[in-house]
Amino acid sequence: MERHFDEELKDLKEKLLKMATLAEEAISLAVSSLKERKEELARRVFEGEEMINLLDIQIDEECMKLLALRQPMATDLRFISSAMKIGSELERIGDQAVNIAERTLELLKLPILKPLIDIPRMAALSQQMVKDSINAFVNKDENLARNVCERDDEVDNLNDQVFRELLTYMMQDPKNIERAVGLILVGRHLERVADHATNISEDVIYYLKGKTIKHHYDKR
Amino acid sequence: MERHFDEELKDLKEKLLKMATLAEEAISLAVSSLKERKEELARRVFEGEEMINLLDIQIDEECMKLLALRQPMATDLRFISSAMKIGSELERIGDQAVNIAERTLELLKLPILKPLIDIPRMAALSQQMVKDSINAFVNKDENLARNVCERDDEVDNLNDQVFRELLTYMMQDPKNIERAVGLILVGRHLERVADHATNISEDVIYYLKGKTIKHHYDKR
Repeated sequence: MERHFDEELKDLKEKLLKMATLAEEAISLAVSSLKERKEELARRVFEGEEMINLLDIQIDEECMKLLALRQPMATDLRFISSAMKIGSELERIGDQAVNIAERTLELLKLPILKPLIDIPRMAALSQQMVKDSINAFVNKDENLARNVCERDDEVDNLNDQVFRELLTYMMQDPKNIERAVGLILVGRHLERVADHATNISEDVIYYLKGKTIKHHYDKR
Repeated sequence: MERHFDEELKDLKEKLLKMATLAEEAISLAVSSLKERKEELARRVFEGEEMINLLDIQIDEECMKLLALRQPMATDLRFISSAMKIGSELERIGDQAVNIAERTLELLKLPILKPLIDIPRMAALSQQMVKDSINAFVNKDENLARNVCERDDEVDNLNDQVFRELLTYMMQDPKNIERAVGLILVGRHLERVADHATNISEDVIYYLKGKTIKHHYDKR
């Protein structure tokens, strides 16, 4: 028996929610691994990556099938095209988690440079942005989506702060250089996570309003 | 009078080609600015960004219109969904060019650290990957698309080499640190350009074959 279109869209939403949860957890695991110096947490990120990638492919395939068989119009069409884009963004967030986990394994071979405060804060902020951006999509919450976009600057500023502090560490002692560079790159990866959450929120606004806000196109 | 579907698809192709040329040129300008220490080249990257972003939005809008009005099937549907994805990748390549131009302006405030060899090589390789990935799309050339994917490792290896060399510079003299970190980040941006070209090639293969090769899904 053929499934209903509404059910198919609901299934798509559930897959995206699941993917978002996995991507968020992967960021959390990677940064906890670094902060608590527990290698096994970083390894769990690598194991989890496969499921995120699989969901990305499934979401893509389902969207293509819906486009071909249901020939949706207006809102439904925007929902499906946004779902495809959001899936790609979540997959890239998963990639960033893998990048952080890889850096972490390198960093854990060396003694601790400094207790981490700002990097876990960046992680918490960007994870919340991912969570909120997906909730904005599922609950059609335009305000929440716009709020996520506004929070991007906060993460960028924290990253600049992390960068400058680590530069000072390097200047003080060349023995700090390798570890400081590693941590600078972790900061960059987290900044990218916040960027992806912002992209998702822009997709949500496009879905809800039918207009593009990316590149501040609406403000021209 | 209504335009023909074929004409609309041709227009989409031309827009993507134009966008790819602009994105490639932006990378070239940014890296030339750094290598030749000419600030005005970096500034041209900022000026060019707007056009790339505008094309991204136009491509997206055209694709959505085609999906809604033409309700395409099979190959045409895959063509349009791939065009949307390729547009996003090109836009991100433009972003990387802007990132490099921003780093360059910072680096040009400081004296030269070393003559650049590997970074311009990375730029040339990744630009060629962008060019080839789009040509693969326009000419339906599966072999070329696969060939681009294979070249990604070459850029990654060059980036590792750049990274290690710059780490040595930092260890030798703390005065090198700020400039070396800047160059390391330029290397990372170029590595990302090659990643985007690889993503485009994966989209091309999906368009041509109707199967997903990303995440090595076809090898499972």
